[in-house]
Amino acid sequence: MEKKPVEKALTGAGLRGQVAGETALCTVGKSGSGLTYRGYDISELAEKAAFEEVSWLLQYGSLPTAKQLAEYNARLKSMRGLPQALKTVLQQIPASAHPMDVMRTGCSMLGNLEQEADFSQQDHAIERMLAVFPSIICYWYRFSHDGVEIETETDDETIGGHFLHMLTGEQPSELHAQVMSASLILYAEHEFNASTFTARVSASTLTDIHSAVTGAIGTLRGPLHGGANEAAMEMIEQWSSPDEAEREIMGRLQRKDKIMGFGHAIYRTNDPRSAIIQQWSKLLAEQVGDTTLFPVSERVDQVMWREKKLFPNADFYHASAYHFMGIPTKLFTPIFVMSRVTGWTAHIKEQRANNRIIRPSAEYTGPDSADWIAIEDRG
Amino acid sequence: MEKKPVEKALTGAGLRGQVAGETALCTVGKSGSGLTYRGYDISELAEKAAFEEVSWLLQYGSLPTAKQLAEYNARLKSMRGLPQALKTVLQQIPASAHPMDVMRTGCSMLGNLEQEADFSQQDHAIERMLAVFPSIICYWYRFSHDGVEIETETDDETIGGHFLHMLTGEQPSELHAQVMSASLILYAEHEFNASTFTARVSASTLTDIHSAVTGAIGTLRGPLHGGANEAAMEMIEQWSSPDEAEREIMGRLQRKDKIMGFGHAIYRTNDPRSAIIQQWSKLLAEQVGDTTLFPVSERVDQVMWREKKLFPNADFYHASAYHFMGIPTKLFTPIFVMSRVTGWTAHIKEQRANNRIIRPSAEYTGPDSADWIAIEDRG
Repeated sequence: MEKKPVEKALTGAGLRGQVAGETALCTVGKSGSGLTYRGYDISELAEKAAFEEVSWLLQYGSLPTAKQLAEYNARLKSMRGLPQALKTVLQQIPASAHPMDVMRTGCSMLGNLEQEADFSQQDHAIERMLAVFPSIICYWYRFSHDGVEIETETDDETIGGHFLHMLTGEQPSELHAQVMSASLILYAEHEFNASTFTARVSASTLTDIHSAVTGAIGTLRGPLHGGANEAAMEMIEQWSSPDEAEREIMGRLQRKDKIMGFGHAIYRTNDPRSAIIQQWSKLLAEQVGDTTLFPVSERVDQVMWREKKLFPNADFYHASAYHFMGIPTKLFTPIFVMSRVTGWTAHIKEQRANNRIIRPSAEYTGPDSADWIAIEDRG
Repeated sequence: MEKKPVEKALTGAGLRGQVAGETALCTVGKSGSGLTYRGYDISELAEKAAFEEVSWLLQYGSLPTAKQLAEYNARLKSMRGLPQALKTVLQQIPASAHPMDVMRTGCSMLGNLEQEADFSQQDHAIERMLAVFPSIICYWYRFSHDGVEIETETDDETIGGHFLHMLTGEQPSELHAQVMSASLILYAEHEFNASTFTARVSASTLTDIHSAVTGAIGTLRGPLHGGANEAAMEMIEQWSSPDEAEREIMGRLQRKDKIMGFGHAIYRTNDPRSAIIQQWSKLLAEQVGDTTLFPVSERVDQVMWREKKLFPNADFYHASAYHFMGIPTKLFTPIFVMSRVTGWTAHIKEQRANNRIIRPSAEYTGPDSADWIAIEDRG
């Protein structure tokens, strides 16, 4: 997410600019900025919709009626429980594990216990993953870190609220539930990014949905994709004032160090998600009486624009927003999974509906031909 | 694997014919047939080398000296044990699970217990996966199907022998160990097929090696990729004579039913792996006194060529060969994993050595823009 705009000729590397398929789900960076889900502008969705409503939109193609949304929410609410075998598996994973490895393993194990027997079950399997992913990460986190076996079937109305409730043991405030909903909307979908493309390549062999999502989680784990908000957090929490932040950023720029949370491979002028989460982060800062982290974040933002004309991407202000809600930094990328699973699975459904196996070519750079050498003659 | 040659214009669909990166590992179908690993012809490798030797070749770029190979074998032999937490996880997976879901979950769990902390550990992690994948599948299979907790640290010299030993409880014959070695060589590497491409897309975010391999396993699980040898087995074992097989195949062709194990997306005139495994299958048939399955297989082969000019691919004669060695059909695709993991990981190393995140574009087919509708006005 943190890459600078590049203007390279189209080559094989990274398939940049090469069309790998069709989608009706999303546009990214049309005319330099902008993000739409099924034609709806991200700003409008984040302001007016709930995450579950956006998930329905991505999955089924239109905004749900009040009845459809109520039924969807009721189904999601009823599917939060963990099978005993999955709990046992999560108990085997040490506190030192990478939380994304936990998500990947939890999703994969779910596929053993609740196999998608054929594609007619895909919507059920998707709703189950949406409902149970927060349970998976919180159950593991609280068990391995606090020795507590939490109840994962809460009464919370929303996925974001459910997550915060399990994590903290308390029902979240309305503000926190609202921020989580907005955040999950912002991360829900982003066209053919690397994790979504992984899901589509995997789905193109007509494999089951848990395989495709497990693969996507593993791809999102990489520091060039998910994880930028964690890296941004680790950076900004080191500084105790905006002036210190400015000095340190200037030093990093001089040393040409990487600065996480800025710029984007596709957006040219700004990331439309950033201003939205920045506003929420500001509100949370006021609420908790923060006088450091948010001012530090804004100064970093100003300096990066002044010095490099780089804008904050979706991840940068997410760091402080999550932190103000008491979320441990190592759980930031798993939240990304809880959200993006709806985008991934909407893409898997598209791929299945009009499939051709994704099998590109390679440019061969090895030896033309080699003659066998008996083992005693080698070396 | 069962697709007919197609001559379509290059479009986005499936990225067919589009170069997605470089590799020095393999050529597939150069001048219409042929398969080379690092320049060595597959026929020569299958005849003269051991699987472990070929794995070294793929991993390190040249044939190993006697000393290097002995050390490699010794390391692989020492790494077959399962950590207790992984055994506990495998015990949670029911007998009804898909064996590829077991492989995927076993690999993912291994990543929690033995995390690749940085890329300097990649070769160690790869050797561990090569050594332990047969243990994972056999431990689960024998525990869930026979209620037996097997010892996974055997004295067998080879990976293939180790697998057969754990599966049957007996040291395999020299012939069986030889066939397994040849089979693992044939499946070890095949350029940018869908599972390998999944591994590379995943690796391109600089994620850990267990994530990339877990994703590849999930992709290989799909019926359009791995699994063709299982489908071929299910087909041929229905028939009790070559004449019955011919009648049934003619009927299927007339109804335009799919016939598994024939043709290939890239090879035009033959699959160079087929003749090799056919010879081994013939030898095994003689050894077990088979008078049905092998003659049925040969007749199917003849009819498919006579009627459709389609040749058997690597999977077709693998079905009977594995069957003659007493391997349950549902374990055929996991053997593919035990072999291909060396190709996948060699590709991951290549991707890491010259990385650009793989992030293609999509052709947007959705609505231009949509206006928000209040929930009470929908439907």
